[in-house]
Amino acid sequence: MTSRIKKLIAEFPRHKNIDALLITNDTNIRYLTQFNACESWLLVTKSKAFYITDFRYVLEAREGLKGVSVKQYTQTPCATLFELCKYYKVKRLGFDEKHTSVCLFRKLKEFCPRRTKLLPATGLVELLREIKEAGEISQIRQCLDLHFKAIHFLRKVVKPGLNERQILDKLEGFVKSRKAGFSFPPIIASGPNSCYPHAKVTDRLVRNNEPVLIDTGIEINGYKSDLTRNFFLGKIPLYYTKTLDAVKLAQEQAIALIKPGVPVADIDLKARNVLRKFGLAKYFGHSLGHGVGLDIHENPRLSYKSASILEAGMIVTVEPAVYVPGQFGIRVEDMVLVTEQGCEVLSGNYNQ
Amino acid sequence: MTSRIKKLIAEFPRHKNIDALLITNDTNIRYLTQFNACESWLLVTKSKAFYITDFRYVLEAREGLKGVSVKQYTQTPCATLFELCKYYKVKRLGFDEKHTSVCLFRKLKEFCPRRTKLLPATGLVELLREIKEAGEISQIRQCLDLHFKAIHFLRKVVKPGLNERQILDKLEGFVKSRKAGFSFPPIIASGPNSCYPHAKVTDRLVRNNEPVLIDTGIEINGYKSDLTRNFFLGKIPLYYTKTLDAVKLAQEQAIALIKPGVPVADIDLKARNVLRKFGLAKYFGHSLGHGVGLDIHENPRLSYKSASILEAGMIVTVEPAVYVPGQFGIRVEDMVLVTEQGCEVLSGNYNQ
Repeated sequence: MTSRIKKLIAEFPRHKNIDALLITNDTNIRYLTQFNACESWLLVTKSKAFYITDFRYVLEAREGLKGVSVKQYTQTPCATLFELCKYYKVKRLGFDEKHTSVCLFRKLKEFCPRRTKLLPATGLVELLREIKEAGEISQIRQCLDLHFKAIHFLRKVVKPGLNERQILDKLEGFVKSRKAGFSFPPIIASGPNSCYPHAKVTDRLVRNNEPVLIDTGIEINGYKSDLTRNFFLGKIPLYYTKTLDAVKLAQEQAIALIKPGVPVADIDLKARNVLRKFGLAKYFGHSLGHGVGLDIHENPRLSYKSASILEAGMIVTVEPAVYVPGQFGIRVEDMVLVTEQGCEVLSGNYNQ
Repeated sequence: MTSRIKKLIAEFPRHKNIDALLITNDTNIRYLTQFNACESWLLVTKSKAFYITDFRYVLEAREGLKGVSVKQYTQTPCATLFELCKYYKVKRLGFDEKHTSVCLFRKLKEFCPRRTKLLPATGLVELLREIKEAGEISQIRQCLDLHFKAIHFLRKVVKPGLNERQILDKLEGFVKSRKAGFSFPPIIASGPNSCYPHAKVTDRLVRNNEPVLIDTGIEINGYKSDLTRNFFLGKIPLYYTKTLDAVKLAQEQAIALIKPGVPVADIDLKARNVLRKFGLAKYFGHSLGHGVGLDIHENPRLSYKSASILEAGMIVTVEPAVYVPGQFGIRVEDMVLVTEQGCEVLSGNYNQ
């Protein structure tokens, strides 16, 4: 059994005193087992873990999983799940309400024997995932190392005459030749396209005297980076420089607050308040940032709506932005590790 | 309002007489609106359709959606959803149990006003999607045209000395240079790796006197193809030829049954019975095939467990297989269109 599974079991008493947990989310299973799970379930009891899978994946699972029993089902995983619950006398089975559809919940209830109680136990694995282990931090640093090289490469590539898709192709070639991948479809938004927070790559030609916003991420072994940089070709107009400075100031002041014990809402509001002073807050409609790890968006969310408190080991993006509809957008996004004393901007040595 | 949304509304009376439907699945929204939806909801009442989205996507939605009102929410989509339900006097709101988590269902119930009833109405859009329109069939034919060229290309590329990943890179270059993408991560499984139904691409060198199983799909404008071909390098051993012939016969006899009105279970069982005669049924552990369209796996499933009946306009894969653990695997997969009279093997003119 992995140390992560042991940590998970240690959480059981605090979560309705469950004596087993069903995990149906692939990434959560991967986190717990280090095995690249696919369309399978993990049942963790107080003393054992079972990977419930079907014919298509069973061979790889048997070879790849360490310390976890592999159980193959034929008809439905529910039958296998509750046979195990029965055999191991599971009385209080937790399940994650976020990763269980109403449809699946119905089936679970149908198969659940009388002696087992189904109890909502949501976000337990995500809670562990919020705090990165040393090995995870170094994996993310590895993504960032390549990401910095990619930004350096982009500096040479982003030139008038190429279209967004061509820039993407060159970036993809660069990343692939280094045996890495993207952690999400890159955003390469030129001129007015940069006003869309999640712009799609188009055939638009990059021109002189306009910005190109590039938001991309590198993925290596499941771990991810996520940074946004703003390129500007030709003569930079004053309104753009002023806005960029405001966004950078918002980021700087938000990052200055980051340390263990601080509510994430305070960080988000700080950035928003800085932008407000410049009359730009109305152009900043999304939250300030998010955790990054095996998922590109994970907890904690840096949002004024969230009640989370920062803890050492969290890695979050800080990405204030200004989007002026039909005109332009600027987003400055860096990755920050919460440390015991304060924080470290992981992408700090590669700012534009 | 699109003709697809009108068709959907026509289904309401047959589904608990709902007077509105909430659609939360991106692909279902894309199907109904032709807009590439992302993390948003669609509410369809008997006379109107509303796209409920947030700041990040609202600009593109306003520009891209035709005949659908775009509503931006700030706090939660639930509040906006039920304001609309209230205003349009929705009394019976359908929701899809497969695409609604227990967590979301809780929130829906919390926000739902007293006069609106939440009713399970599952799979309505998927039901429409099963029967392909002429335009969709021609989109899939377009994917297959390129797919055939890719297979032709692979014939020249799959040679001893290259590893699986290098073959993938060459294939990817070929597909990308034709402005298309993959519909799923390709399976390129050499030698004993072919015994894993969903093998991952590795660095294993392709050698002489062994098979290479390639299962891949082309995606253009969201539509997809899905074919598996088996390459063999060098001298083909007798056991391999015999197994391949049995798998091909299973496919041939299954396809011969395909026409409107036939239960999908019969098709699956036919292939299984042919393999049984050769003592190979125990090596065929997954279902015979699946629908293909905007999703790579969609309804109907060609499975002996399914109660579906074939109808004209369905497009399904037929993919019998034999996987001998630790030794080798063979899967022959083609795409078949159910026609009024019988069927057409869409990939029939490009068999190996």
